[in-house]
Amino acid sequence: MSRVDTAVTPTDVLTFGETMALMRTDSPGPLATAHQLGLGIGGAETNVAIALRRLGTDVTWIGRVGDDGLGEKVLREVAAEGVRVVPLIDPAAPTGLMIKERRTGDHTRVTYYRAGSAASRLTPADVSAERISSARLLHVTGITPALSTSARETVFAAVDSAREHGVPVSLDLNYRAALWSAEEAGRVLRELVTRADIVFAGDDEAALVVGSGACDGLARGLAALGPAQVIIKRGAHGAHALIEGVTHDVEAVPIRPVDTVGAGDAFVAGYLAEYLAGEDAETRLHTAVRTGAFACLVAGDWEGMPTRRELGLLDSTEPVQR
Amino acid sequence: MSRVDTAVTPTDVLTFGETMALMRTDSPGPLATAHQLGLGIGGAETNVAIALRRLGTDVTWIGRVGDDGLGEKVLREVAAEGVRVVPLIDPAAPTGLMIKERRTGDHTRVTYYRAGSAASRLTPADVSAERISSARLLHVTGITPALSTSARETVFAAVDSAREHGVPVSLDLNYRAALWSAEEAGRVLRELVTRADIVFAGDDEAALVVGSGACDGLARGLAALGPAQVIIKRGAHGAHALIEGVTHDVEAVPIRPVDTVGAGDAFVAGYLAEYLAGEDAETRLHTAVRTGAFACLVAGDWEGMPTRRELGLLDSTEPVQR
Amino acid sequence: MSRVDTAVTPTDVLTFGETMALMRTDSPGPLATAHQLGLGIGGAETNVAIALRRLGTDVTWIGRVGDDGLGEKVLREVAAEGVRVVPLIDPAAPTGLMIKERRTGDHTRVTYYRAGSAASRLTPADVSAERISSARLLHVTGITPALSTSARETVFAAVDSAREHGVPVSLDLNYRAALWSAEEAGRVLRELVTRADIVFAGDDEAALVVGSGACDGLARGLAALGPAQVIIKRGAHGAHALIEGVTHDVEAVPIRPVDTVGAGDAFVAGYLAEYLAGEDAETRLHTAVRTGAFACLVAGDWEGMPTRRELGLLDSTEPVQR
Amino acid sequence: MSRVDTAVTPTDVLTFGETMALMRTDSPGPLATAHQLGLGIGGAETNVAIALRRLGTDVTWIGRVGDDGLGEKVLREVAAEGVRVVPLIDPAAPTGLMIKERRTGDHTRVTYYRAGSAASRLTPADVSAERISSARLLHVTGITPALSTSARETVFAAVDSAREHGVPVSLDLNYRAALWSAEEAGRVLRELVTRADIVFAGDDEAALVVGSGACDGLARGLAALGPAQVIIKRGAHGAHALIEGVTHDVEAVPIRPVDTVGAGDAFVAGYLAEYLAGEDAETRLHTAVRTGAFACLVAGDWEGMPTRRELGLLDSTEPVQR
Amino acid sequence: MSRVDTAVTPTDVLTFGETMALMRTDSPGPLATAHQLGLGIGGAETNVAIALRRLGTDVTWIGRVGDDGLGEKVLREVAAEGVRVVPLIDPAAPTGLMIKERRTGDHTRVTYYRAGSAASRLTPADVSAERISSARLLHVTGITPALSTSARETVFAAVDSAREHGVPVSLDLNYRAALWSAEEAGRVLRELVTRADIVFAGDDEAALVVGSGACDGLARGLAALGPAQVIIKRGAHGAHALIEGVTHDVEAVPIRPVDTVGAGDAFVAGYLAEYLAGEDAETRLHTAVRTGAFACLVAGDWEGMPTRRELGLLDSTEPVQR
Amino acid sequence: MSRVDTAVTPTDVLTFGETMALMRTDSPGPLATAHQLGLGIGGAETNVAIALRRLGTDVTWIGRVGDDGLGEKVLREVAAEGVRVVPLIDPAAPTGLMIKERRTGDHTRVTYYRAGSAASRLTPADVSAERISSARLLHVTGITPALSTSARETVFAAVDSAREHGVPVSLDLNYRAALWSAEEAGRVLRELVTRADIVFAGDDEAALVVGSGACDGLARGLAALGPAQVIIKRGAHGAHALIEGVTHDVEAVPIRPVDTVGAGDAFVAGYLAEYLAGEDAETRLHTAVRTGAFACLVAGDWEGMPTRRELGLLDSTEPVQR
Repeated sequence: MSRVDTAVTPTDVLTFGETMALMRTDSPGPLATAHQLGLGIGGAETNVAIALRRLGTDVTWIGRVGDDGLGEKVLREVAAEGVRVVPLIDPAAPTGLMIKERRTGDHTRVTYYRAGSAASRLTPADVSAERISSARLLHVTGITPALSTSARETVFAAVDSAREHGVPVSLDLNYRAALWSAEEAGRVLRELVTRADIVFAGDDEAALVVGSGACDGLARGLAALGPAQVIIKRGAHGAHALIEGVTHDVEAVPIRPVDTVGAGDAFVAGYLAEYLAGEDAETRLHTAVRTGAFACLVAGDWEGMPTRRELGLLDSTEPVQR
Repeated sequence: MSRVDTAVTPTDVLTFGETMALMRTDSPGPLATAHQLGLGIGGAETNVAIALRRLGTDVTWIGRVGDDGLGEKVLREVAAEGVRVVPLIDPAAPTGLMIKERRTGDHTRVTYYRAGSAASRLTPADVSAERISSARLLHVTGITPALSTSARETVFAAVDSAREHGVPVSLDLNYRAALWSAEEAGRVLRELVTRADIVFAGDDEAALVVGSGACDGLARGLAALGPAQVIIKRGAHGAHALIEGVTHDVEAVPIRPVDTVGAGDAFVAGYLAEYLAGEDAETRLHTAVRTGAFACLVAGDWEGMPTRRELGLLDSTEPVQR
Repeated sequence: MSRVDTAVTPTDVLTFGETMALMRTDSPGPLATAHQLGLGIGGAETNVAIALRRLGTDVTWIGRVGDDGLGEKVLREVAAEGVRVVPLIDPAAPTGLMIKERRTGDHTRVTYYRAGSAASRLTPADVSAERISSARLLHVTGITPALSTSARETVFAAVDSAREHGVPVSLDLNYRAALWSAEEAGRVLRELVTRADIVFAGDDEAALVVGSGACDGLARGLAALGPAQVIIKRGAHGAHALIEGVTHDVEAVPIRPVDTVGAGDAFVAGYLAEYLAGEDAETRLHTAVRTGAFACLVAGDWEGMPTRRELGLLDSTEPVQR
Repeated sequence: MSRVDTAVTPTDVLTFGETMALMRTDSPGPLATAHQLGLGIGGAETNVAIALRRLGTDVTWIGRVGDDGLGEKVLREVAAEGVRVVPLIDPAAPTGLMIKERRTGDHTRVTYYRAGSAASRLTPADVSAERISSARLLHVTGITPALSTSARETVFAAVDSAREHGVPVSLDLNYRAALWSAEEAGRVLRELVTRADIVFAGDDEAALVVGSGACDGLARGLAALGPAQVIIKRGAHGAHALIEGVTHDVEAVPIRPVDTVGAGDAFVAGYLAEYLAGEDAETRLHTAVRTGAFACLVAGDWEGMPTRRELGLLDSTEPVQR
Repeated sequence: MSRVDTAVTPTDVLTFGETMALMRTDSPGPLATAHQLGLGIGGAETNVAIALRRLGTDVTWIGRVGDDGLGEKVLREVAAEGVRVVPLIDPAAPTGLMIKERRTGDHTRVTYYRAGSAASRLTPADVSAERISSARLLHVTGITPALSTSARETVFAAVDSAREHGVPVSLDLNYRAALWSAEEAGRVLRELVTRADIVFAGDDEAALVVGSGACDGLARGLAALGPAQVIIKRGAHGAHALIEGVTHDVEAVPIRPVDTVGAGDAFVAGYLAEYLAGEDAETRLHTAVRTGAFACLVAGDWEGMPTRRELGLLDSTEPVQR
Repeated sequence: MSRVDTAVTPTDVLTFGETMALMRTDSPGPLATAHQLGLGIGGAETNVAIALRRLGTDVTWIGRVGDDGLGEKVLREVAAEGVRVVPLIDPAAPTGLMIKERRTGDHTRVTYYRAGSAASRLTPADVSAERISSARLLHVTGITPALSTSARETVFAAVDSAREHGVPVSLDLNYRAALWSAEEAGRVLRELVTRADIVFAGDDEAALVVGSGACDGLARGLAALGPAQVIIKRGAHGAHALIEGVTHDVEAVPIRPVDTVGAGDAFVAGYLAEYLAGEDAETRLHTAVRTGAFACLVAGDWEGMPTRRELGLLDSTEPVQR
């Protein structure tokens, strides 16, 4: 296919997974009384990729989409952000789709059209060892193994290949209840955690793997499975981390959130950008909570992700009357 | 006219009155500097009807509109919600119209074009005894008797017919200062109260009929005129009721309101839906305040009315960063 | 489910099938560079139902949708038009969805998300004999048998039941190449033609069943299979019909088409409305071509369907400068 | 009222009449399925005033509107165009309103809310002799005398005052069938024609006054009543005029019209602008047909009115591929 | 040029300066991901002029713009508000332009295209002594002298002419860091302060001229340079003033601001309107803080400016559920 | 700057020049009465680059923009299309801007804000010999040398470097009268023609260089200056070419154009794509006229550029009524 970059270029972060077309209503209310939908895209891995890119990190994303207009949309929006896109066009399955109904300002209902989507047909061959070994870090999420058997195999194959090539593995548990049961997720994600170097999880997600508990217990439980860096994302409560055996607690930046979707992905990107820049754990977490906070200030899963310069706006004083 | 349902079908609630086309600006500011208006519909009785329908109650609305595009709009939007519409197309008068200017986020100015409208020409013949006797409840508002002499006669004739057929009568005082004086309204509404079984009123509206006082006095005053169920709607302060001689006080659900128009109608629908479902007074009021609260979460007079399932969202915890 | 009309009401036309949410771009260009989509609905049977209703015919539509916002949208838009809706809410499958990309003013690309949709799970039990026998006509299309095995069984069961109860059957072949092969379609549609009283077909569609030929041969071929009324829809070339053994040719109304989608459904509705009104074949065809022409004057699959009064606009002279 | 210009300034053209708020759908289709309306203004006299202003003529318009947002809209849009506005704010009646439904690209349905409007309450005192005598020309239309008795009196009083002060009177017959009968209009307009110096009429309008006939007969008939300049506007067929006893025929400029509303007003403005500039009859008619043609190239009653520089675009050659 | 009012009319306030086309995104987020921009206008002097006009004061604005569509836009929007516009069309330079990116709800980034703009080419001849002497007050800002040498000369010439004719001079320091250095601004503005009668300044702006300090010291410092009325605008902290030797402190009206841009201009207009109406200092400041507060309730630099009637809305109680 | 690709990747086509933000009104009419503008981008070289990319050719664009939101917009839209972007962020100058007013359907007025723009500050160092030698073709236009002295030097330096490295040079004359005189353009473009291998020109543009004449004479005249391939673009009249000494004439594809801007760039891309694919002259010209025609079917300078698959739509038959 003509858009495939056949050449493999060295990159900081390699990631892959499903990015869908995303349609949403402009203002709160029932979808049934709406007449227009905004058309965009969304996917946990590309959210992270875009946030990393805006922070100055080089990222490559392998994306499988259908041979349709929505697939073109997904590819063009990710490429627009400066992410290196390795497009895989599946002629036999459509691009996944999600529709967001903001029923009220605080309650969102999402309908997915992703069963049998192109991205659910990812196979281990789509993520070559050559690409993996050309990266400084591999980032995967717990969504991909829930998409299909072949997608799950792809994640495990990629992670194993990364380990083999000495490429550190970052994993965000990202449990999606619409895709699989807590039981199955817990079992599979546990397997992934044992193979990862850096693990991100919400409290509930960590509990799927190690059983419920306070956040320090959750972090210790995950770390006991292998990863040297475990970060518990706690939203408005900040973050708790166990990094190379040292405990860190960081507070959230106080903001008035507009849209919290994507904030977890922003957090991950903030952490990884500093990690790859060689910064210490405190700096990683400091940037992570700030990036996560900033992403909440704009509607959209990724549109609000900050550049490093924009992160500085969080420190600016109140606007005054002019 | 072809759209009239000549057959009379048994229904839970029968209601009638004026529903107008409703145009409004998208964002706060002067109407004079706006260039686009949203086009919808609004009317107290159809607000109640739609809210009842979303809660699962069968409702029939008799609507008189002009033979014009805005009349078609009114009929189609009410029918869209699953309300049984008995359309009366008046070839000689236009559909009423209201324009809402949101001057600031907190201040709305409404201009009406309803003098001589089709709905103001309602006559007693428009609401047949057959339809009334096929309903389990008749709901009327204090707006209709203010529209014209014939509209007033229609309300009284319908109420009398309901009483004759043993159909309970629900009345929402709904005083509209733009339509008539407080004096005239007080006199006419008092007459209606004496004929009603269930009466809803705001503090100020109750005072028009029984003189000002605290809300328990207002309720007692109204109940003394006849109705077995008197409910004082108190907005952010909840509700006070005197039902079958028993006093009830219920608190409002704490929310951040987006648009309070329609909340009183939602409250009425919540109460009536439970009443018709055979629920006790506490349940009726509990659902009433919750339905009223939910309706405030979305812009629009009726668009945000909740289904029973959606009412449950009021209990959900804070959204978290994902 | 609360919205189901359990009571069965006599109706002129009963129809059923898949109606989907329909998203489309406003102006020509790639979907990939669009940022907003109009949200509406579309389905051949509801297009016919809405057009019939606007012409004054009473219509009932049995619609199976998912338990989601798009399903609510489908139900509310059909109900808005005054069609009696018998809603079947499928908790286990989503509402079908189609996305229309107007690549240029003349070229449209449609992507469907309908595999496994709620409507594809129609079963014979969804269309009761009681409903069929309460109608004066049953209208089905060749789309429904292509959706799934159970949907196909539903069509055949309904048609057989109609014949049993003496209810005439109208069939629009409506071949959809995206759903099945020409071979399979030809075989199944032939079976349906033998059971129908009124058959509508484009030239190509007729050829699937009786082999290619000129339109008079196609009509004779279809009539030989049983139906007393065979109408070949020829778009800008008008129509050819063989009705009760008599041949009719009618020219199209000359217009500048804006959007031809839905014109065939409008044609069918024009024909059936006059047939049910007891008009002769010439009148039926005259109204059919005019209704079809009018529907081309407005963008949207059904939005432009005319009322009887609006049909008169086709005769108005040129607008003059005022 | 603070906006009234109490000072009277010399002006080229003085005019007055009803200008309404104007709401319209963006694209063809039923109003009932529209969700947004464009908000603007329209009125024959202000259309002429705006067109005159864009051509460089100084114009003053006396406008009576309600004390509401739509009235502010009317005043601000006319003032925006550089027309001197003498605002009269009527606290007791609303601003008139019209709603335009473009049912198809060629068929528009207009609904008016102007009965009892502020402008229908114009009185002779609103148009002072001082203002009239400060103008070089008074322009009135046949719409104003149809609004109410007092509005009719206002027109006659203004015309008589102009004659008394030696100010020439321009009259556009502008018959509106929605406002009065052909008989009454014919009688009243005849009276006005006898008092006018310049009369503009369509064929049909002229026939109301002098009986039907060919356009040269119509012009002679009107001229026989008094006016020295009679111009028959013939839209796509150009114009016929009888000016100071000399007959003139001018062809229309060939264009593809987008919206013909306002073209007649543009024609009048083109004629009057040249008349006031002292140009001869040929030049007046030449500019009139060109201004009328240009106004058809843009949607909107007045938005497309040309400046003198823009009139030159009618002569430009075909755009080429760049 | 045809739009120039050659006649000079007496006016309450004369002002001049650069008003630009203003484009802005609808909702927060990066400009780079926006697809539509709202098109309006903005300029400190016309903000003041419009606010004054809405409060009932007669205002004249001399505006220099390019011979382009944006220049027409600027002129028409200011004229729309009832401000007398003296248009100066510069055929050799474009109209200035500003683009506002609302990066988050609280952070705005503005890009200017005003270097070499038409307004930067203002010359002393553009503001005639005749116009100045026909006004009751001249209002200038510290923006104009930063635009160019000739613009600076124009301000000084106008101020000197006003003093010569006994016309009081109002000056708002309005320091714009994008246009000149603090040093140069401090020096030039100091010169202007010595020539002004009424001076408005924010704390920071005052400090540029007299060195930093508390607001009472700043006011004393400015007053020491000559002006009898010095008002320090303190936004959400109200205002401090030293008027005819008397100190005044006034609190702000508590509001939830939507957009604070233009609030300072509204404040100035509120003060000047009361000053020209002969009201005392307390009344001037009372109206100033209220006008400033109101302007914050609507998005847009000037769109939300209140009329006197609308100012009363600030006292209305909380909206209740209806 | 972080987005710069420091690595140089082999590419098919290298190009550079000014791409601006592009704002335009949605529908015909004066800019002064518009309230919204669409925000996009445009530039001759990126139009060609995007069209090439959609046809499957690998392209690299070197783009100099300001450090502002519009610059980010330019970079993201070009990158979105799969073009390799080498971004040069100029901290000291803004991104160029153009505003398109569609005064009527056939007349467009463009206002530029490009004087002193970032792209006008291109220098020879921005286009390294290493990048040039890694390309199979260099494409430049006659716009860039008109921007500034340094931009002109950049073009000549790049062309000379290409010749030195054996990289063929493609030149589109693209004369822009707003930027320089015909005399200066003729002189400079003549110098460029002598250095080019492939030259594209409209009739008028060719005449600037070789004097006016028929298109065969123009082609011979240009070819005499050196280029082996000379193609005269003739819009609706097709094209005339003199390629390796052989004359070719090709007709245009008959279409109803919606927007002809960008058609010439599409033509160039169609030609170059086939040239680089090794196709013969007839195939190159055949694809060129088809690509040019297709681009006219969609509004926007580049949005409508076709893929190879979409080119096939030009052969599809009329859409039929469905």
